[in-house]
Amino acid sequence: MRIDVITIFPEMLEGFLGQSMMKRAAEAGHVEFNLVNLRDFAEDKHRKTDDRPFGGGPGMVMKPEPIFKAVESLRTENCRVILMCPQGAPFKQARAQALSKEEHLIFICGHYEGVDERVREVLVDEEISIGDYVLTNGVLSAAVVIDAVVRLRPDVLGGEGATESESFSEPLLEGPQYTRPADFRGMKVPQELLSGDHGSIAEWRRGQAEKRTGDRRPDLLS
Amino acid sequence: MRIDVITIFPEMLEGFLGQSMMKRAAEAGHVEFNLVNLRDFAEDKHRKTDDRPFGGGPGMVMKPEPIFKAVESLRTENCRVILMCPQGAPFKQARAQALSKEEHLIFICGHYEGVDERVREVLVDEEISIGDYVLTNGVLSAAVVIDAVVRLRPDVLGGEGATESESFSEPLLEGPQYTRPADFRGMKVPQELLSGDHGSIAEWRRGQAEKRTGDRRPDLLS
Repeated sequence: MRIDVITIFPEMLEGFLGQSMMKRAAEAGHVEFNLVNLRDFAEDKHRKTDDRPFGGGPGMVMKPEPIFKAVESLRTENCRVILMCPQGAPFKQARAQALSKEEHLIFICGHYEGVDERVREVLVDEEISIGDYVLTNGVLSAAVVIDAVVRLRPDVLGGEGATESESFSEPLLEGPQYTRPADFRGMKVPQELLSGDHGSIAEWRRGQAEKRTGDRRPDLLS
Repeated sequence: MRIDVITIFPEMLEGFLGQSMMKRAAEAGHVEFNLVNLRDFAEDKHRKTDDRPFGGGPGMVMKPEPIFKAVESLRTENCRVILMCPQGAPFKQARAQALSKEEHLIFICGHYEGVDERVREVLVDEEISIGDYVLTNGVLSAAVVIDAVVRLRPDVLGGEGATESESFSEPLLEGPQYTRPADFRGMKVPQELLSGDHGSIAEWRRGQAEKRTGDRRPDLLS
């Protein structure tokens, strides 16, 4: 899988891509990351990528030309061009699953007041929002989607975690988990987890997960 | 405002905090960031911060002692301890607004299969989830919340953007924005934005925002 990220802040992603699961996935050849500095596609000597909005108003809008040029330089036959923006479809685990099967993703990271509408109209296959909150730019949003997608690629996680049993893989939040010590400052691990009876442990966990989901996120059950 | 982030991957945040708005906010003294390596609070010689779950099952659970010790070393009288985890309350712009008024935030970044339940029970004031998807760890989630919160602090954004008119500050998505050129490869800016009549431009924008929200996110209008 190849992942290109078009942004005016490529350095913001370097720490993220150079650590932990992402680094191992890249080193093992499961994914190839390519950080693309949008300024390299600006035409003027100041490498300007934004300009004032037509019709007035606060903030700056990202210019169409540099983004078109950047995407056109990266496109492959089976690529999917994704714009990270607040107007996009709310990102969910099912979308992460679907995107993890793609060959080539190109992320455009929005910034400032937004991107010129013509980018949205003709260049972009899909718009994604990671949640109903405002961020300074789309680099973090792209990092979130990349993390959620790459960990689902075959062989990436290995034994580190089981993608089957987590929150949002099924419509239940995970219930309580405990590790050693069994008694920490007087707080004890529930007796049910110490029984050694795998059937009753699974039943207890299921009940806890259902209770937690009902208490906190009844919307997931409907 | 002081922000501590407890994580086993502090390097993942360095690029993010060292760039753009975050860097300027820290340099201007609006916020003080403190990356805390959880391993520094582990007791054994391998600096182990996770262990197998009681009751069996895949993955590892973050141990309680190092997290308790880390938080206890950082606590101040008016701090708020936030656990980033999939079981938390879904993060929204209103929560970002509220958190931007706090003096001191301590983020605990979950990882692996989750954190020992005793952390949740007695150490944490609030649990936050940035969305219904699974990430490899809570560092990215914490970065998202920090970005959303810090930009709302007084004097942080300056003239860069107006926090009033953006998506989610009111319950409408932003409509189309355009910048120069007025004609890009034959795609023209809507005539309405070129009129110079501020009243009719505001009306057109309002209508576009309502249409976009109705088309894409009717849930925001109900």
